[in-house]
Parts: sequence; C-alpha cells; structure tokens
Amino acid sequence: MTIRIGILGYGNLGRGVEAAVRQNPDMELAAVFTRRDPASLSIQTPSAKVLSVDEAEKMQDAIDVLILCGGSATDLPEQTPAMASLFNVVDSFDTHARIPEHFAAVDAAARAAGKVAVISCGWDPGMFSLNRLYAQCILPEGEDYTFWGRGVSQGHSDAVRRIDGVKDARQYTIPVEAAVEAVRRGENPSLTTRQKHTREVFVVAEEGADTARIEREIKTMPNYFDQYDTTVHFISAEEMQRDHSGLPHGGMVIRTGKTGLAKEHSHVVEYSLKLDSNPEFTSSVLLAFARAACRMAGEGQTGCKTVFDFPPAYLSPKSGEELRAHLL
Amino acid sequence: MTIRIGILGYGNLGRGVEAAVRQNPDMELAAVFTRRDPASLSIQTPSAKVLSVDEAEKMQDAIDVLILCGGSATDLPEQTPAMASLFNVVDSFDTHARIPEHFAAVDAAARAAGKVAVISCGWDPGMFSLNRLYAQCILPEGEDYTFWGRGVSQGHSDAVRRIDGVKDARQYTIPVEAAVEAVRRGENPSLTTRQKHTREVFVVAEEGADTARIEREIKTMPNYFDQYDTTVHFISAEEMQRDHSGLPHGGMVIRTGKTGLAKEHSHVVEYSLKLDSNPEFTSSVLLAFARAACRMAGEGQTGCKTVFDFPPAYLSPKSGEELRAHLL
Repeated sequence: MTIRIGILGYGNLGRGVEAAVRQNPDMELAAVFTRRDPASLSIQTPSAKVLSVDEAEKMQDAIDVLILCGGSATDLPEQTPAMASLFNVVDSFDTHARIPEHFAAVDAAARAAGKVAVISCGWDPGMFSLNRLYAQCILPEGEDYTFWGRGVSQGHSDAVRRIDGVKDARQYTIPVEAAVEAVRRGENPSLTTRQKHTREVFVVAEEGADTARIEREIKTMPNYFDQYDTTVHFISAEEMQRDHSGLPHGGMVIRTGKTGLAKEHSHVVEYSLKLDSNPEFTSSVLLAFARAACRMAGEGQTGCKTVFDFPPAYLSPKSGEELRAHLL
Repeated sequence: MTIRIGILGYGNLGRGVEAAVRQNPDMELAAVFTRRDPASLSIQTPSAKVLSVDEAEKMQDAIDVLILCGGSATDLPEQTPAMASLFNVVDSFDTHARIPEHFAAVDAAARAAGKVAVISCGWDPGMFSLNRLYAQCILPEGEDYTFWGRGVSQGHSDAVRRIDGVKDARQYTIPVEAAVEAVRRGENPSLTTRQKHTREVFVVAEEGADTARIEREIKTMPNYFDQYDTTVHFISAEEMQRDHSGLPHGGMVIRTGKTGLAKEHSHVVEYSLKLDSNPEFTSSVLLAFARAACRMAGEGQTGCKTVFDFPPAYLSPKSGEELRAHLL
C-alpha cells in the first residue's frame, strides 16, 4: 500500500517533506494545501495537487496522513485540531510549555473523528525526547543534559531582525565545549543557562545605522539574549548570502547515571545530531511517524499520540522478520 | 502495583539485575533461581528466596517477570522457551545470526502459555538495535556504522584463556579512532574488519610458558583475532587484578544520510555508550523492558517481542501526562 501524504504549509518544512517523500518508496505526495493563492505556488512534484486549505475537506479520501508544516506560535494551535477532524495528522509543535493543552485539544478532535494525530514530532521535541525517555528508564539514578547547536535558531534570528536598523540577521546557538566535556566525564555539573550555551549573531545593518545601539539592544534583549554571553558581528549582505544561507543545527542529549550495589559504576549515554538542514531532518522525522500513524490508524486506534507511544517497528516499512534478522 | 522480579542465573548479569531492582521503586526481587545448590548461594537481598531452578513452576504466582541471566551459547536457547511457558520473561540473547530461530521457539512457547517474552534485550542487541532502526527510518538513504569499545569482550577473553600456558587473560576491543572520525565527517568510508577495530590482550602466563608461542596462537586464532591487528601484553597476576578487574564496555552507532531534492544536505546521527560495567548496564536495560513486558501482558498480549515492539512510554513508571509535560 502506498501512503498518500498531504502537506499544509509550503515553507522550509513543507518543502522538506516534499523532498523526503521521494526518499520513501512506500509514500507519494498527493496534495499541498496553502493559505495563499494556490496559483502562486510552484511545487516540485508534478503529480501532486496544489489546493487552498479551504478545499481540504474534499480531499479526505485522497490523503492518508496530512503533515502540518506551520509554526507553533499561531498556526498549529488552530490547524492541528481542525485538521485532526478530517485526517490523520502529524505536527512538529515545539512550544514545550504548551504541549499538555495542545495535546488535549488535538486528542479531543482526533477521537471525535476517529483519527490518529501525532504532535510534537521532530528532533526536539521528538528524537531528543525519546532519548531522554529511554536513558531515564535505563538509568533511574542520574542526570539529564540537553545541549543545542551549533545551529541557527530561527526564533532568535527573527527577534534580531525586528530591531530598528537591522536589515537581516542570523543567530547561532553554540554549546559551551567545556560544559559538554564536564558532562561527558560524568562530573554531573550544575550548569546555569550562561554556562551551557553562547550565542553568536551576524547582522546586516541598514546604511548609517547605529551599530553600537543595535549590539546593545541585542545583548540586553530579555530572555532571548540577556542570560547568555553573546557575540555580535556586523557583515555585508553579500557575506550573509555567501556564508549564512543554510539552516544547520544539531545538539546532544546526554544522561549520566550510576549502577551497582554501592553505586560504584558510572555510565554515559549520549545521542547527538549534526544536521546540515534543520527543516529537512525534521521533515524526515515527520514522515517516519506518518508511516507509524497510518499503521496505528489501520488498527483502529484513535486520538493524539506522541513519539513515546509508537513501537519503533511501526516507523519502518520493513516487516518484523526483516527487522529482527538484519537490525537487531 | 509492585513488579515482582525473578532472576535465573546468579553470575555477573544476575547480580546486576539484583542491584538494579533497588534503583526501581516500583520493583522488588522475589526470587533467585539457580542450577547450583541453593544453599551455596549468598545473595544481597534478604527478602528474596533462593531456589533451585526445578522449583520455578511453584513460584508462578509470586513472580511477574523472570529475567534470564544465562549465556547465549547453551543456556538461553533452552531456558528461554522453557521459562516462557511459566512466566513473562526477558533475556539478552546476543547471537545475532540465531535470533530468528530463537524468536520462533520462544514465540511458540509464550503464545501457548499466554505469556509475553522479550528476547535480545540489552545494548547490542538492544539499545544499539533501536538506534539503528530509528536512524534508518528517518534517513532512508544513508549508511550505518557500529563500533564497539573500548571494552572487555568476555568471549575473546575466554578464547585466550583456553590457550595452553595461559593462566588468565583480558581482551579489549578498541575502535579505530581514524575510522570513527571519517564516519563522523560523513565520508561514508568502506571499512574492512581490520580498519574498524583493533584488539588488545593482557595475559598472565604460567611460570615458564613459551610466551612467543602464546602470542602467535592468539594473533592467528581464526575469526577471533586473525582478521584484526592485535597487541599482546604479558603481565603479572597482581597487575591483572589491579588494572583489569572491571568489565567496562561501550561503543557507538552512527548513521550518516542525505536529504534534499538534490541530496545536497548531510546529517550525522550518533548514539554512544560509555559503560563502567557492561553487565550492570545490560541488567538495567533488562529491567526497563521487564516493566514494559509486564504492562503488555496486562493488556492481554502474548508472544515473543523485541525492543522494536514496545512503545517507549511502556518502559517508564511515569504516566503519559507526566512524560508529555516533563520529557517531551
């Protein structure tokens, strides 16, 4: 059976899903939905339809899983429950503090419609969450550490772009190497926000802008920068285009824990990602869980799920026999 | 509900399970079964019974999950199917090539008895397998690499001990750092057995033994050493005791893969373990899956399972709400 994928929202993430569908022979892209004028959208998959989101309901029989590619701030809290009434859905909702309320809203919609919905899928939340869970279950007595970067934070880049006199900006989150090494040595350090990450900002300023003021506004911006050691570089638009057009990211989840009757043995479990393209990797995770959602829906299950709820085998197109013979 | 654990076999692994039970507040050790004379066994848990394996059947109502702590060569192929007729069981069967036949035998026994059995649990097979599966599902186009070490291989240590003139031996498996770095850089190298790992052996020779012959016999031993660059050190019994009495191990699973319409982006996913005690970490994994097996059995499921078949949430004593709020 081919899994028919729909995409809602054709930004970096939506384009990443479109590309990733081609790497999964058991999937095909059926349609891209947009809130813009469909005629204005040029996609890379000739066989797929481009439709207004208002036409989604008509496509219920043509799509097995809809991938929601909007943002967590305003798009997904509305879109995921609405679309879970029509389709099996997967989103990458990443506002950690609001996950419980998002889960409740999506769960109610999906159950009422008899659909499976997966929220907060990607790498953090997502693969990092899974690794926190597995490592905590194996080593109940220990400490968790999550480091992000080196990578582009789009939220922080956007925040800098809103400063008066800034034409363009790119913000990199960087783990403090000494902190990472102390964790890896099993020292269980207590780390402040400042001790875990630094921030580096590249800014294209408007002609004649007061760069000293811009730098000061960045470094003192509450929550985004004031708790970090931040370095600011002013560069040309050409340098920005040449050196900072990618969206790399990554990071690591490390758990250190003790075992033994006298807790005499230490263990370090580390999961790390080095990603050339944050949105394309996230898209690839979304599709693996779309396959799992499809399988779970086929079993008659309904409601909202997370990465914690799927047997890992459900993510694979391979049979249980193949997995046991070749991957176990 | 407290999960009542039984242990069959009181070697390094069995002792590790006993210690790990104390770190899991929802578990208690009910009994240790042995093939030796129970009176000869001194365990660390006063409240637990020590019984002959022949008495296992009588303990069916007192044990929720039995952890099989025997060896893969001869113990588990017999014990796991036999015990799966009486209990929910978890084993760490690690002869990769024979997993399909072991699965079939255990599955038949567990289904007939209405029990859940988990085989091939630990870190490899086990956590490494899970990480191979997740990474392959996310990055369908890529390459997998598994490196082991630096750590003690008990099978290789035993093989050296069987050589004439060897009183004691410890073998360390060591990943070749240059190979690991090439993989991490995304170079997708084709690596021979020799290029991936080296072996280092510490030997206590008998008084007057021909050390040149021993070294030659080690280095040319088919399968165990002949395909590797091996270093042999002759040391005293005191040095062996002082420097090599632990059972550290570890390793890493790395997948590198491409995404993008033109496969223009590379990604590196790495899972690594640094373990002071191989048997204690393995024991800790076994107990996490014992909890999952117990939950699955409570749902009325039966048959043989692997790490691929359990929703990660089943490994945790925490509720879905807690996991979503704090770990996602």
